[in-house]
Amino acid sequence: MTLFCYNSASQKHQKTIQQITLGRYLIERLFQLKIGTIFGVSRDFNLSLIDKIYEVESIHGKDSIKWAGNVNELNAAFAADGYSRCSKSHLGVLISSFGSGELTCLNSIAGSFAEHVGLIHIVGMPSDVSQSKDLILSHTLDKGDFTIYHKIFSNVSETNTILHDILEAPGEIDRCLKIAYLKQKPVYIGIPQNLIDVLIPITQLETPIDLSTPSNASDVQHEIVSSICKLSKTAKNPIIIVDAGVSRHDCKSQVSKLIETTQFPTFVTPMGKSAIDEGGVGGEIFNNEENPLIFQNVQTQLLEGKSVPSKFGGVYIGSLSRPEIKKFVQKADLVISVGTLSSNFNTALISFDYPTNNVIEIHSDHIKIKQALYQDIHMKELLTKLNSKIEPCVSSSIIPQLRLYNTPAPVETKLTQSWFWTRVSSWFRPGDIIISESGSTSSFGILETRFPSSVIAINQTLWSSIGYSIGACLGASMVIKEQEFHLRNLLLATKPLKDQIPQSKRATLFIGDGSLQFSINEISTIVKNGGTPYIFILNNSGYTTERLVHDLNAKYNDIQNWDYTSIGQLFNSKNYENFKIETQGDANKIFYDKSFGKPDKLKIIEVKLDKFDAPESLIK
Amino acid sequence: MTLFCYNSASQKHQKTIQQITLGRYLIERLFQLKIGTIFGVSRDFNLSLIDKIYEVESIHGKDSIKWAGNVNELNAAFAADGYSRCSKSHLGVLISSFGSGELTCLNSIAGSFAEHVGLIHIVGMPSDVSQSKDLILSHTLDKGDFTIYHKIFSNVSETNTILHDILEAPGEIDRCLKIAYLKQKPVYIGIPQNLIDVLIPITQLETPIDLSTPSNASDVQHEIVSSICKLSKTAKNPIIIVDAGVSRHDCKSQVSKLIETTQFPTFVTPMGKSAIDEGGVGGEIFNNEENPLIFQNVQTQLLEGKSVPSKFGGVYIGSLSRPEIKKFVQKADLVISVGTLSSNFNTALISFDYPTNNVIEIHSDHIKIKQALYQDIHMKELLTKLNSKIEPCVSSSIIPQLRLYNTPAPVETKLTQSWFWTRVSSWFRPGDIIISESGSTSSFGILETRFPSSVIAINQTLWSSIGYSIGACLGASMVIKEQEFHLRNLLLATKPLKDQIPQSKRATLFIGDGSLQFSINEISTIVKNGGTPYIFILNNSGYTTERLVHDLNAKYNDIQNWDYTSIGQLFNSKNYENFKIETQGDANKIFYDKSFGKPDKLKIIEVKLDKFDAPESLIK
Repeated sequence: MTLFCYNSASQKHQKTIQQITLGRYLIERLFQLKIGTIFGVSRDFNLSLIDKIYEVESIHGKDSIKWAGNVNELNAAFAADGYSRCSKSHLGVLISSFGSGELTCLNSIAGSFAEHVGLIHIVGMPSDVSQSKDLILSHTLDKGDFTIYHKIFSNVSETNTILHDILEAPGEIDRCLKIAYLKQKPVYIGIPQNLIDVLIPITQLETPIDLSTPSNASDVQHEIVSSICKLSKTAKNPIIIVDAGVSRHDCKSQVSKLIETTQFPTFVTPMGKSAIDEGGVGGEIFNNEENPLIFQNVQTQLLEGKSVPSKFGGVYIGSLSRPEIKKFVQKADLVISVGTLSSNFNTALISFDYPTNNVIEIHSDHIKIKQALYQDIHMKELLTKLNSKIEPCVSSSIIPQLRLYNTPAPVETKLTQSWFWTRVSSWFRPGDIIISESGSTSSFGILETRFPSSVIAINQTLWSSIGYSIGACLGASMVIKEQEFHLRNLLLATKPLKDQIPQSKRATLFIGDGSLQFSINEISTIVKNGGTPYIFILNNSGYTTERLVHDLNAKYNDIQNWDYTSIGQLFNSKNYENFKIETQGDANKIFYDKSFGKPDKLKIIEVKLDKFDAPESLIK
Repeated sequence: MTLFCYNSASQKHQKTIQQITLGRYLIERLFQLKIGTIFGVSRDFNLSLIDKIYEVESIHGKDSIKWAGNVNELNAAFAADGYSRCSKSHLGVLISSFGSGELTCLNSIAGSFAEHVGLIHIVGMPSDVSQSKDLILSHTLDKGDFTIYHKIFSNVSETNTILHDILEAPGEIDRCLKIAYLKQKPVYIGIPQNLIDVLIPITQLETPIDLSTPSNASDVQHEIVSSICKLSKTAKNPIIIVDAGVSRHDCKSQVSKLIETTQFPTFVTPMGKSAIDEGGVGGEIFNNEENPLIFQNVQTQLLEGKSVPSKFGGVYIGSLSRPEIKKFVQKADLVISVGTLSSNFNTALISFDYPTNNVIEIHSDHIKIKQALYQDIHMKELLTKLNSKIEPCVSSSIIPQLRLYNTPAPVETKLTQSWFWTRVSSWFRPGDIIISESGSTSSFGILETRFPSSVIAINQTLWSSIGYSIGACLGASMVIKEQEFHLRNLLLATKPLKDQIPQSKRATLFIGDGSLQFSINEISTIVKNGGTPYIFILNNSGYTTERLVHDLNAKYNDIQNWDYTSIGQLFNSKNYENFKIETQGDANKIFYDKSFGKPDKLKIIEVKLDKFDAPESLIK
């Protein structure tokens, strides 16, 4: 999809000038990388740089690139992270400010680092002159060391730079942007105020940044492909386990092809959810009030061929998996693990303990076959090669199917987590962006859903920062707005306007009441930027996850019970609607409602649940 | 004021047990240090420790010590900082959790470090067993290094420890608490989950932590006192400049005595405001609608002897000072600077450039006379000694007086910053806690007020983190609640209840609309804990300070215009009232209103101001 008019509208403008400011250079580079929204808070040391966003927007056209203007840097960085996860750019951008501003977002950046998210963190710094004169010693914790925060961030950045030399600055910028994209990790770029308006030749801007990975060494790749093919051929119960690296490094189609070719039963990790087509049906056909029976048993529908049966076996959560999934994985004699993020398989709660020694790990930039490590081999090229060599191997195993059905119940039956997640599952539509708060009941509930095709799921499973998901929802809302903007431009250029505006994509957030309190203020930025997500607030009167983990009745897990209907009013939205659902009848009413399904306004849905109720996987 | 019953009610209980858990030891130590509220967010690794707060409360009586339960750690740390600044304990306490939780508050802790605030940051960590087995590698950014966050915090902590050895743990805790108090800086205590419930002998708890500073070397002190007396005697235009260290290190009465004895004209730095009695009148006599004339000229009132004329000359802000103050300081031939925090006199905006070489710096733990440095001399003891030796020296200089008057104007005249700050100045009451947001127009406006006696001002002048002041307001509200609680207990013990409940103290926050958006969610914690502050929201449609600093019309300084009347409703307060003032008449109406002056509910006052209007000192 080439939606940017960089080489047409703006070329003329550029030819008339031979020099541009370094600040504009940086923003133009981001624009070339298809960044449409930059997140952050305007403060002392970054104001001149933010000016450049408006300048670049004025050159390339309204809404071509824009400043989100967040309420704080912590949330801004969450938003940039969420944006990166669902944008075609595979990058998010955040501008913070030296000292207090940048430190505010350290937790978010650490999350992006832990979860392998491509993120560019630009920090407006005092001018070199101030630094050399120590004019603002107080801002350096009385230490006179202007690199102190930069050093702190080096713990959570793949690379970093502070620009001082104008001749080297453009190259340094390009180097950092490339690494952020290729490694899918945060990078840190410090830019002193006095450099923003220094002129540099335009030449370097004309050559796009090379984002290609180096080619794999062909002999090594050949050896790996042969080994995998051989192991696959002899395996009786091979499985594939897909993790988030597949989404991050843009390898979804390669993995999809691998599954299609091998027909190996495939599971996803919690973070890998949405990296492959789960064969979920969802959407209109189940949200048909006139034929409620059709909703009763998705399983039946799948078996009757109303949907293409997939090789998707569900979510593998190690020892916490459903018994049938655990059993299935236990008897595997070959595990092909694709896109695993962590260097080992352990997370806070989950231990992945495969019984077989035949484990193949395909990471973004290295491969491990049993105990043999192959460095500097990139996933995408390897998978492409593998797909051309590996042979079909139709497994006879019956894949465990998700229990996607709801038993009929009186409409006044109170909502339970278990019923809710199944029900909402069939409301999802292909292409939805579905965000669930980590560490809350939502992140467990979402594992019990089955997505239709092309869904993008966002959940900060490993790092689990409370409050992450509101920022991420802002990021997703901006991606959707940009996609619509470009699609509309495209349609306007080719067809008459009438009836050509496509149905909007949807961003849907599931968040607990406790997590919402952490960062509710960022809903203001969603409103300000015209975002129209669904926000399902799972109100279970406090930190239910913590209750279940530690003490059911501990007082500190009670939170102030808010009036969620006031959110839209406080943030002064002119386009929102409140809903409150307590019973199965309430839920069905909204899910059957076509106008509810249309993402034309901010929709806040309070889902009233019992204090001690939780999704099955969490209770386990 | 000894308000704690540690040695009566609880002694019996303790005699029956010979051992206590380490977790309880820590909380009991905090209780001994007169900590009444602990701030933080309950999460995985700190739940067992928070249990101990409830345990200690159950031993010493309801509300003796309590858990605030904040919405996020960033705000929680702001609250602990604000608490420390106005509590008699001179300490604030925050409990966070390993990884994401602790990193969220790094900016706040850096602020406490930069501004010399005594703060104890306790971090609940994974158990030693998990750490040694690397069970949760994902929480260490895939680095397997459990000390990574601890190392980051060492940049902003005076000292730090991770408790591993149970035998050393109580001593380590005591060491850190002592340093936090004496140095007035943050300390970091990491406590692994598995240590919380390990039993230790009760013995060590019975000896209070020694919080005394070491005595000054008498010969050195003698030399210093002699030098100061000599310089003071010969000076023709001596002045005293008071900074925040005086408040932090509990030396207000010593400094007050010094001013009284010497009669030297005295100025405060922006951070030093409220460290000395400013001789402001405020309170009831000016809020008398029947006699509005009396309000017209505070200056006249002072001259007529209706208030004790003080030697207070106003706020010295270096080159940004009012001309008459700048001139006064310029001609000083001796500057006694007391309690300066920064190691030099420069801050981001202000350069303190004294023309005289006769500068005496009295810091908390060292003294500098001209170029001679005296290490390890503590301010409090030195000032006491100095006060007994220094001779009165009535200066003939006429001290510049603050222009505290309001010219009469039609009631429908729109509010201006200049008028507002003068007007509100006379509404203040002795003993008020007045919090102003740093970096916003409030922090400049507050410099144009004159406080009545015993006011405590809170402003994060040096570090200037946006959003700090809402957390600080929560901290102040808790201090007020605790003081009332103890006073009530005292009165109940000595007198019949009737008519004995004293008039409540007041916490008043001034915050801009932009800053409010940064951390509004913490108002929920104020509501939950029954705080009843005044929150003046200076609504000037965005980041006015940034406008004035950089570009009056930059779009990124516009913010989403909220409906501030919805705040109380969203946070579900049962006890709040909204006000909106736009004209001088509106303002006078509330300030004359006795029931408005009573802090019996959360009061949210939207002050509508022009987008480009700002206090004089900011415009300069």
